[in-house]
Amino acid sequence: MVFSKLFSGTKDKWQPIIQQLEAIIGKDGIIRRKEELLTYECDGLASYRQRPALVVLPRTTEEVAATVKICHDNDLPWVARGAGTGLSGGALPREDGVLIVTARMNRILDRDLDNHCITVQPGVINNWVTQAVSGAGFYYAPDPSSQIICSIGGNVAENSGGVHCLKYGVTTNHVLGLKIVTADGSIIDVGGVVPEMPGYDLTGLFVGSEGTLGIATEVTLRILKRPESVCVVLANFPTVEDSGAAVADIISAGIIPAGMEIMDNLSINAVEDITATGCYSRDAQAVLLVELDGLQVEVETYKQRVKAICHQNNATGITTANDIDTRAKLWQGRKAAFAAAGHMSPDYFVQDGVIPRTKLVEILTEINALSDRYGYKIANVFHAGDGNLHPLILYDNAVPGAFEIVEEIGGEILKLCVDAGGSLSGEHGIGADKNCYMPYMFNETDLETMQYIRTAFNKKGLANPDKIFPTPRSCGEAANAQKIKQFKDAEIY
Amino acid sequence: MVFSKLFSGTKDKWQPIIQQLEAIIGKDGIIRRKEELLTYECDGLASYRQRPALVVLPRTTEEVAATVKICHDNDLPWVARGAGTGLSGGALPREDGVLIVTARMNRILDRDLDNHCITVQPGVINNWVTQAVSGAGFYYAPDPSSQIICSIGGNVAENSGGVHCLKYGVTTNHVLGLKIVTADGSIIDVGGVVPEMPGYDLTGLFVGSEGTLGIATEVTLRILKRPESVCVVLANFPTVEDSGAAVADIISAGIIPAGMEIMDNLSINAVEDITATGCYSRDAQAVLLVELDGLQVEVETYKQRVKAICHQNNATGITTANDIDTRAKLWQGRKAAFAAAGHMSPDYFVQDGVIPRTKLVEILTEINALSDRYGYKIANVFHAGDGNLHPLILYDNAVPGAFEIVEEIGGEILKLCVDAGGSLSGEHGIGADKNCYMPYMFNETDLETMQYIRTAFNKKGLANPDKIFPTPRSCGEAANAQKIKQFKDAEIY
Repeated sequence: MVFSKLFSGTKDKWQPIIQQLEAIIGKDGIIRRKEELLTYECDGLASYRQRPALVVLPRTTEEVAATVKICHDNDLPWVARGAGTGLSGGALPREDGVLIVTARMNRILDRDLDNHCITVQPGVINNWVTQAVSGAGFYYAPDPSSQIICSIGGNVAENSGGVHCLKYGVTTNHVLGLKIVTADGSIIDVGGVVPEMPGYDLTGLFVGSEGTLGIATEVTLRILKRPESVCVVLANFPTVEDSGAAVADIISAGIIPAGMEIMDNLSINAVEDITATGCYSRDAQAVLLVELDGLQVEVETYKQRVKAICHQNNATGITTANDIDTRAKLWQGRKAAFAAAGHMSPDYFVQDGVIPRTKLVEILTEINALSDRYGYKIANVFHAGDGNLHPLILYDNAVPGAFEIVEEIGGEILKLCVDAGGSLSGEHGIGADKNCYMPYMFNETDLETMQYIRTAFNKKGLANPDKIFPTPRSCGEAANAQKIKQFKDAEIY
Repeated sequence: MVFSKLFSGTKDKWQPIIQQLEAIIGKDGIIRRKEELLTYECDGLASYRQRPALVVLPRTTEEVAATVKICHDNDLPWVARGAGTGLSGGALPREDGVLIVTARMNRILDRDLDNHCITVQPGVINNWVTQAVSGAGFYYAPDPSSQIICSIGGNVAENSGGVHCLKYGVTTNHVLGLKIVTADGSIIDVGGVVPEMPGYDLTGLFVGSEGTLGIATEVTLRILKRPESVCVVLANFPTVEDSGAAVADIISAGIIPAGMEIMDNLSINAVEDITATGCYSRDAQAVLLVELDGLQVEVETYKQRVKAICHQNNATGITTANDIDTRAKLWQGRKAAFAAAGHMSPDYFVQDGVIPRTKLVEILTEINALSDRYGYKIANVFHAGDGNLHPLILYDNAVPGAFEIVEEIGGEILKLCVDAGGSLSGEHGIGADKNCYMPYMFNETDLETMQYIRTAFNKKGLANPDKIFPTPRSCGEAANAQKIKQFKDAEIY
């Protein structure tokens, strides 16, 4: 086991801490063995790895609060971890700290169907929420692609999105209230069942704070009535410009689809290689998928309008589907996009950035230019409706230096996003991965204000240190330092 | 002019400050004469009055920043004021401080119709936003009843609602980005055109912070496409229970009306006295107004469903309206509710509280019991869809002690709301009026956490002191102290 300087050579210092934790959580809730700790070395961003000193698996708010209090009293950094599916290293542990894993906090605490809400522990899996209320005709809207394995606590931490967030909003729009353990072990309740609450909107502040303000131990979520009808329109376009124009026209027409996705030619061919749906034309430069939901008459009307708009913008091969199986078939290609990237190339790097919707075509052209300049293929998958890009940079990690170049390309793409008036992250978060880019998007005063907030909740800086914000430690790595330097040289900082 | 201890007997101390302010804002932007300052003594909550030492009328972000910096450097408290229509005394000045009035910050800075947003200065009137974009088929959704006179800056400070916020959400759901001058005179930019931004959601935190974290000098708002069709359904119910059951059934059916309002028998008769619409039946114990919007086919379908639900719940006299004039006629009674209260009684006190929608009938029964117990008539107007109550307590201020009793009844109503799992305020804010009730809703740790946030932005406590939070000063008044004591005695604190 690796200990920080604080504990190096003084392994015994952990003994009283472990004893205290065992008294609270029980022996079966503490993981100390090196081989068992391996599981927790990284989250979905496997290029960052760090073994924690200790893993604890509490079951209740009180156990979490007691654990955090012990960390606070002993100046131990701690990191919260849900299902570990995050893509920005937000749950990367500290070698000198405690990893609080919510896997056993997996109970549904309350269903209040009359008030359209449900209260769950943070370890509950995203998809379970819908399962718990679907019998009564409800569902939980935010649907990250990992929804069958990711946890609500992680969704709250990263303010997760999904393909249906265009119409319904990301996680923050669906969290009504939280029970939070702050970094000193205090328990606070924020928000509630009614949406209008006085005082500061601490619920909104906490969602997306990536574990740096505390840990949510109960989450009250808004649930929605399942729409009467759903329809998917798939259209193949001869140029990316045409698909972008169709998106703009759909939005201009006042239509707000549940989801609206674009895939480029490289992605289309990749998914056809593995899924052979037949609906995605290999010649198309872009495929647009539009999902519409609501009343049957409403969906039917919008379907006709969307088809007409696609036709006007030179689409061919327009397919529509109303029943669930055919809809799944049309979505199959989009859902297989990441797997298909893995099929095309030994490795791929997925970037996550946001641009104003109106800049889609312009930025895609620039991403293609980057691809040509660096000689790396980039497959593009977009949440086109809200301008959230997911370029997949294909590479071979066995080639020395390839990963560094890919990271550089990823950084260039983020630069394009920010320069276009967009954002460093749409739904994956900043975590340990992008904190060095924060000064490219925010000026010193902005970051300082955020630090004040962090300090307000997290005085000793023990809750998920080194995440979100650039710090000497995380920016000390050569590669990152170089990136920042380049950005500063561009006279933007 | 009244000065604080800081300046009492040292009137000259203001001279250098006024000189500095004049150099920045110009002589025409400073108000010092006693009779001119009278206008600024109170906002819409006229029972609290305080003349400020000085009023400044900046035109730009830089002028605001310079003003705030001067206050910061000289330890002068300051309060921001928009149009002064607030109902919780949020813009109540300090006798020893500066009142920053945004009346001259009334420019529309940018219209970005492609990205469905508009950027305005804070002094822009709510209704002007819609006027500025209606030619292109857009509108701004939050519609407080004061929308033809209230300002966007005030809407942001109080997180204002309105009758159409059931479907579209309150102000915070429509603010994409802000330029803020914080309490030390720094300028920060939060949020932006794209909805997904990394770091803490400072935009969401600032909206509803009632001027205690700084002053917004630019506001980027989301605008919506005007719906193709709008319809109003008005139904008269023989009992309040029936109207409450209809609301529950509409929501359960997955229908989300743009607005859904209930008025009780006393309100119905009061508005019929002055408007004589003829649609509100004087015998009805409740009138329900439901506004539906969307595609024509959608609105028509929902209209039939809403009518059927009303019928099933014993409604009579169901009227519907699609064209704008007839709709306005149906709304006329609801819009006249406050004026009608003024017609029924020399004075009235409007309370603002929130309850879970499912508790509507129960709480209304309890409010009626309070009315009987105290012998004061209470007319009830509800944003029924989101459980936001506006009981109007009728009284005569000429009767000694009447106002104090009315305040006590208002406090009892808030107690009912909080006990039912609701909130102290739906849309009017806490301001100077309800800060003493905050401990009834939040425990010490919750309030302490909010204070940490306040301090993070507002270290010296100079930005709108004494608002939102209970402080010795504002709770020192006998009446309030008594109220808190009662609440504490109830063993809830």
